[in-house]
Amino acid sequence: MVDIATRELRQPIDVAEYLFRRLHEVGIRSVHGVPGDYNLSALDYLPKCGLGWVGNCNELNAGYAADGYARVNGIAALITTFGVGELSAINAVAGSYSEFVPVVHIVGQPHTRSQKDGMLLHHTLGNGDYNVFANMSAGISATVARLTETYEIPTLIDNAIRECWIRSRPVYIALPTDVITRKIEGERLKTPIDLSLPPNDPEKEDYVVDVVLKYLHAAERPVILVDACAIRHRVLDEVHDLVEASGLPTFVAPMGKGAVNETHKCYGGVYAGTGSNPGVREQVESSDLILSIGAIKSDFNTAGFSYRTGQLNTIDFHSTYVRVRYSEYPDINMKGVLRKVIQQMGALKTSPVPHISNTLPDQEKGSSEQTITHAWMWPTVGQWLQENDIIITETGTANFGIWDTRFPSGVTAISQVLWGSIGYSVGACQGAALAAKEQGNRRTVLWVGDGSLQLTLQEISTMIRNNLNPIIFVICNKGYTIERFIHGWDESYNDIQPWDIKGIPVVFGAKDKYKGYKVTTRDELKNLFADKDFCSAPYLQLVEVHMPREDAPAALRITAEAAASRNK
Amino acid sequence: MVDIATRELRQPIDVAEYLFRRLHEVGIRSVHGVPGDYNLSALDYLPKCGLGWVGNCNELNAGYAADGYARVNGIAALITTFGVGELSAINAVAGSYSEFVPVVHIVGQPHTRSQKDGMLLHHTLGNGDYNVFANMSAGISATVARLTETYEIPTLIDNAIRECWIRSRPVYIALPTDVITRKIEGERLKTPIDLSLPPNDPEKEDYVVDVVLKYLHAAERPVILVDACAIRHRVLDEVHDLVEASGLPTFVAPMGKGAVNETHKCYGGVYAGTGSNPGVREQVESSDLILSIGAIKSDFNTAGFSYRTGQLNTIDFHSTYVRVRYSEYPDINMKGVLRKVIQQMGALKTSPVPHISNTLPDQEKGSSEQTITHAWMWPTVGQWLQENDIIITETGTANFGIWDTRFPSGVTAISQVLWGSIGYSVGACQGAALAAKEQGNRRTVLWVGDGSLQLTLQEISTMIRNNLNPIIFVICNKGYTIERFIHGWDESYNDIQPWDIKGIPVVFGAKDKYKGYKVTTRDELKNLFADKDFCSAPYLQLVEVHMPREDAPAALRITAEAAASRNK
Repeated sequence: MVDIATRELRQPIDVAEYLFRRLHEVGIRSVHGVPGDYNLSALDYLPKCGLGWVGNCNELNAGYAADGYARVNGIAALITTFGVGELSAINAVAGSYSEFVPVVHIVGQPHTRSQKDGMLLHHTLGNGDYNVFANMSAGISATVARLTETYEIPTLIDNAIRECWIRSRPVYIALPTDVITRKIEGERLKTPIDLSLPPNDPEKEDYVVDVVLKYLHAAERPVILVDACAIRHRVLDEVHDLVEASGLPTFVAPMGKGAVNETHKCYGGVYAGTGSNPGVREQVESSDLILSIGAIKSDFNTAGFSYRTGQLNTIDFHSTYVRVRYSEYPDINMKGVLRKVIQQMGALKTSPVPHISNTLPDQEKGSSEQTITHAWMWPTVGQWLQENDIIITETGTANFGIWDTRFPSGVTAISQVLWGSIGYSVGACQGAALAAKEQGNRRTVLWVGDGSLQLTLQEISTMIRNNLNPIIFVICNKGYTIERFIHGWDESYNDIQPWDIKGIPVVFGAKDKYKGYKVTTRDELKNLFADKDFCSAPYLQLVEVHMPREDAPAALRITAEAAASRNK
Repeated sequence: MVDIATRELRQPIDVAEYLFRRLHEVGIRSVHGVPGDYNLSALDYLPKCGLGWVGNCNELNAGYAADGYARVNGIAALITTFGVGELSAINAVAGSYSEFVPVVHIVGQPHTRSQKDGMLLHHTLGNGDYNVFANMSAGISATVARLTETYEIPTLIDNAIRECWIRSRPVYIALPTDVITRKIEGERLKTPIDLSLPPNDPEKEDYVVDVVLKYLHAAERPVILVDACAIRHRVLDEVHDLVEASGLPTFVAPMGKGAVNETHKCYGGVYAGTGSNPGVREQVESSDLILSIGAIKSDFNTAGFSYRTGQLNTIDFHSTYVRVRYSEYPDINMKGVLRKVIQQMGALKTSPVPHISNTLPDQEKGSSEQTITHAWMWPTVGQWLQENDIIITETGTANFGIWDTRFPSGVTAISQVLWGSIGYSVGACQGAALAAKEQGNRRTVLWVGDGSLQLTLQEISTMIRNNLNPIIFVICNKGYTIERFIHGWDESYNDIQPWDIKGIPVVFGAKDKYKGYKVTTRDELKNLFADKDFCSAPYLQLVEVHMPREDAPAALRITAEAAASRNK
């Protein structure tokens, strides 16, 4: 292949600058990652492209942070170095793949000549194989773009970013050190990357819409059930309009938390089979037509596969297909279908939903108990949350507890219910809080357990370094509680080394950019929630919330029991 | 396949117990890892098999720790959980693969039935593919053993452990939850796994020995150069006998540090091309026959490919081949060849080596300078080290600086010169210190930079939890110094958030199991080295060593310059 001579370029631009300008164009303002010698000179291009460098403490955390940033910002970028860096991040990227989060993963590679010569360089397996790591990433990437031949680089970059966005999944871009400074055609930047969805075949779309409407009009008790892929594949406007126009009872699966306005009169709560909010199960399971939007029916999202809904009563809307009862319609995106259904559906038979809003369970009402329990805490948290908050919950007691929290409007919920990598939430909080800061000043709130915190604590340092002000609640209950409920109730392998958690930001050099708290009673937590300074501090805050080791949200107990029996 | 009925077994034993008894048999006493619901019930078997559970803070660190444990103990085991856990560890396992360290990686998987059904479980990509992660590990494992069919499980386990040992590389064992408790034949345990090397073809071996001896006897100035694979492929006894019997000048490559007794009269120092110890380059490069044992001629191990030695003057000894000048002899192990060479070589022509032992460079001698510099520090460290110490140096200033340290006898050096994953040394220190404790009471000393520490600091908590007492020196020089020397001298991406490093063990709950120090002058460090309590404390110690941001060992400067120019 002959490289295009630079002199033939109308507006020569270095590859790294082209790539970073494209990232900026699609909305990225900060890039996560860790420097390494194969990516250093690329980092030089960030400032001139309007991109900030986060500088994470390690690559796994950087990957988690990029995922959190993408969930708030729409898309994120992550830069690592060949071999050691990319492999450290691979679990985080796999999580983004699993949960449909668009992250552009750029990997700084050795010089193309060193690769061709199979040189025995640091960060290699010592066997001259320079493809092994990219191949590992292929299974968790929507596409792998190896930038080597100059003539195809702009196309590869544009396609990768487009795939990342459209398929809402990570892509892998290999950037060798010598490619960083190669010249390509900059004029191409005048045409933005086309991020629009490929339109559905109109005839097919109309056909599917007719089928949907037929069943919808015949239904006596239709309901809407919204799940993760409605968020990840960007049909929240359609969902909102559908709820508004139809007036149908609307529920969310746990991974769909935050997808709909939970203060809306049609909103009925979380459906998760036997782990559902009170009254929800009865209404969903007795419905004769569930409009299921973006479902991911994983074990943890269904309280251990405890849905009792029939496919005969279900229409499934997805990004790549629609299924009406047992009829499948492949290669069609729900977005266009939903839009037309809303336009054409007319009046439907509706039934009222009981609107429960963060009321305490009966046994907690008027109790003088001071021990902080999950049953008491999560509705109380719901009363404290504010509009447009971002709330991140770690896999464990927190992401099950949040099922019992009714959100104010505009809340973004972040959790990793399917992939479930513990420690994720701390990294994700850094990324989310940064995106929130860039968007104006949304508040970012994290709930993480003392066990999970130990995996990724150093990203609190990155929050401080970047002047972020999330509120971090650490559930102090002496170890891996979700594991205890699955197996090994009293086993030492579920214990952890006890830490002075409140002291962590201090050793990370927080100085006056930090305030720490310790609460052991309900009154202390309520007082903190009532404190205006606490609620809107411009600095990082961390709250130790001490809870009994044996306590867990009801939904976790049910799900853990199902997991334990499935493992046997 | 029909499972063997339990009633036909002479001595039924559960799979997990069989596996763990085999680990104990090959010398493992502690197992590293993080609990996860797919491995929890396997962990129950550890105590009855005489194995301790370390309980690391995260899987990457656990992998590093297993690597460190294996380098001291001979072999290690690591337990992670499906998907999230194993991928978090994969960079560490790749490092073990790259650097020939035997680690048995056991991955707890979902029930075989869930896998066959392609269930939508947590820790999956949501696509029903249960092979994707094991396939990722295949490229960094000597073998992948999927324990599913009962009849072949004992063979798979025994073969995997044997491959791990013989090839000195990680192996991957997939252990589904339902397999843990399946019954297999326990009587097999009465026959230990055969860990002996397959013998060389005697005729071929004799042929190679004759060729080696021919050139050896003809040589006027032969020298011995010992590198990493001499350690990793366990020929140190042969190396020792060769040096002793031949009296030849002996040198080590950086990755071979610790392979020979550095107090021996034949030992001349580190050879690394232009980064060699004083006088060494001249002697090695003027030699007419280099007996090169276990070489890994990577960029960082050769100060940027700066060897000036000819293949015509070299005999290469390896675990799978021997090369005499340009004649290659494949499928032969150096061990048998070296043994016969020692027996048959008789008297050789020897030349004396200048024995330099931790003397300061001329410009540092008698200097009243108090600033701690690398040129002053590493020989001084050498004067302080004790026999049988284990010294771990992080990739960066430390693992280049150590080239200037002459070890007392019996010292084990641990560094990751080829793979070079920053943060490795902190995890490795935990594993090494644990193995040291199990062996009696060898002292473990870590040198890590303030940048690298940020990736993996939480393993200090694991050291405290396991009552380990390494001495940790943290080079405080404000960021990623090795990166600065390669690119971006003043760029903020090479900066780090400043921490109160001495305070870290305190927040990790060290209490009276810890003492911290801060040294900023040469006298302070010398006083600390002279303090008997410091030198043999039964608790963890951490020393902040403040050094100028701009200072680095000479070998690092040379190597970084070569890397920078290769990247361009």
